[in-house]
Amino acid sequence: MSRADRVAEALAERGLDLLLVTNLVNLRYLTGFTGSNGMAVVGRDVRRFITDFRYVEQAAAQVEGFDREQGPQDFVSALGDGWPDGELRVGFEDQHVSVRTHGRLRDVIPDRISLEPAGGIVEALRAVKEPDEVERIAAAAALADEVYGMLREQGLVGRHEREVAFALETEMRRRGAEPSFASIVASSERGALPHAEPADVPIERGTLVTLDIGARLDGYCSDCTRTWATGELPGDLAEAYALVLRAQEAALAAVRPGPRGHEVDAVAREIIEAAGQGEHFGHGLGHGVGMEVHEAPRLARTGDAQLVAGNVVTVEPGVYLPGRGGVRIEDLVVVTEDGHRVLSGTTKQLMTVE
Amino acid sequence: MSRADRVAEALAERGLDLLLVTNLVNLRYLTGFTGSNGMAVVGRDVRRFITDFRYVEQAAAQVEGFDREQGPQDFVSALGDGWPDGELRVGFEDQHVSVRTHGRLRDVIPDRISLEPAGGIVEALRAVKEPDEVERIAAAAALADEVYGMLREQGLVGRHEREVAFALETEMRRRGAEPSFASIVASSERGALPHAEPADVPIERGTLVTLDIGARLDGYCSDCTRTWATGELPGDLAEAYALVLRAQEAALAAVRPGPRGHEVDAVAREIIEAAGQGEHFGHGLGHGVGMEVHEAPRLARTGDAQLVAGNVVTVEPGVYLPGRGGVRIEDLVVVTEDGHRVLSGTTKQLMTVE
Repeated sequence: MSRADRVAEALAERGLDLLLVTNLVNLRYLTGFTGSNGMAVVGRDVRRFITDFRYVEQAAAQVEGFDREQGPQDFVSALGDGWPDGELRVGFEDQHVSVRTHGRLRDVIPDRISLEPAGGIVEALRAVKEPDEVERIAAAAALADEVYGMLREQGLVGRHEREVAFALETEMRRRGAEPSFASIVASSERGALPHAEPADVPIERGTLVTLDIGARLDGYCSDCTRTWATGELPGDLAEAYALVLRAQEAALAAVRPGPRGHEVDAVAREIIEAAGQGEHFGHGLGHGVGMEVHEAPRLARTGDAQLVAGNVVTVEPGVYLPGRGGVRIEDLVVVTEDGHRVLSGTTKQLMTVE
Repeated sequence: MSRADRVAEALAERGLDLLLVTNLVNLRYLTGFTGSNGMAVVGRDVRRFITDFRYVEQAAAQVEGFDREQGPQDFVSALGDGWPDGELRVGFEDQHVSVRTHGRLRDVIPDRISLEPAGGIVEALRAVKEPDEVERIAAAAALADEVYGMLREQGLVGRHEREVAFALETEMRRRGAEPSFASIVASSERGALPHAEPADVPIERGTLVTLDIGARLDGYCSDCTRTWATGELPGDLAEAYALVLRAQEAALAAVRPGPRGHEVDAVAREIIEAAGQGEHFGHGLGHGVGMEVHEAPRLARTGDAQLVAGNVVTVEPGVYLPGRGGVRIEDLVVVTEDGHRVLSGTTKQLMTVE
């Protein structure tokens, strides 16, 4: 069954006739189209794809199984006609469509067609990866591992954080990928800021460096954090590392079909809280990864969805000690029928890289 | 008068009391905040800035003249209180706020407060650059000129388009900038696709190569296209170059305070149409550039706004000959009190780069 067929099935469950797909990531997932302007209308017997003149040739090469149309560049107006007969209930992606665009859609689309909020239908399909998608994510993760390997050989002490981030991203690009998010290189007290920007300051000896990088390759993302020592560590940082590693491994062991996101989050959180560091773990345990680096499902206190085989998620607890430093250890894993498979291949044992 | 004061003035003209600023570019423009999660409420006597725990320290360093609050990560809920007394009309950025977020805002914000579509207020301010902003854009443009200089020394023939794009972007990054959009390197018949992706094929001798690059430096973008020859050109491509250059220079001469966007567009379009190539110029003449690489005002058939001093726009006619090649020549210019100043420093005379 094609992805579009599965959308049609989900529509039927909600009592909808058609889905208007305007989000470009969802559009790429359904049609293969990688351009920056396009939309689709999907239903049991409807497969309509619209783009503007700039992308007509590209769409002809990429989009199969849809009726392709060329619309104007501001192409909401293409939706004035081309609809099946009768009264129709058409879903739109309400978490992506702006209030202004919704108003224009309502003006253009015939009155016999009702517009219903229906965001999340394609995202729910995307959360369960097909084998081919898992392999693409695994390839992106393997590429990031190679980049980590290069950094380990180059060393860290004395280099500016920003220069290290630049070297990591250049190496990803040299290997044909691009960063799936802005790389984090946070040493010493900056490691205590979960989203520090790499600074123009040298990395010191005898501290921790949090490295958080991801590659986007062939449309799919990876995400992996490692925290490395740059020499003998002070006791509090060494203890923090051991604690986060223990929490990470325990939570990872809980990843399988069945538990809800908040239950896996709780495994790590209880270990960190029992060690008296609960207040220093201020973010969720993890998130889904796929065509976007943050997608469903969430592993967090508010994560209600049950894990199912095919989910790809991060497991990334952290402990952040203000003014001292921070530790985060993050693996990327795919949920399998009987457990999980780790896609991150760089060791989690405390590494010293000087 | 501060930018926030000017927003307050624009609100008064529209009969609004406050503006809810959620778009991150507009938020940066008004507050200086560069994080990925924040919002502001702005009015005559209200300067409220809200972010989540991850960005509290960053906001303290960046955001002045606002009352700073820490909200939850999903921080629409912070808008349940903190409002001035009485019935209020609050504008929101309807071209950015999704239908779903609007629904949540409506649920959270007290009933005595009406929510009114008010998109474009900050964008209208942003379209008229302050002197400091023009200098930042000029610096980004100068950096891109240096990158073009490097490429000219390196040469083109035999290199893969994709490798050239990589080299251009790496050089931007080495100089402390990042690309403001994915670089275009389109040779031979691929030059006829206005938005071709760089291909893994070698650049041939005796053809045209369209190069379209921009740098983002210190929050501001540049945008510059040049088309270079890789040797002696066939007659049709040489003619196309001469035609586009003539159209570009004529349109550029029309850039000053007063004319509307469509009038400047028409100057280039009439020249290209008179030469019988009108059907091969399928896009608008240009667009505003600033914190975003595409912003107001537009120079296109649908551009209604009059140019004013402080606008920064591109002037970029093109002619695309299917199966043969394409030419686009693009300058970045700032409108001054008595005309304009060109910010692109790379020659437009036909360059041969082998």
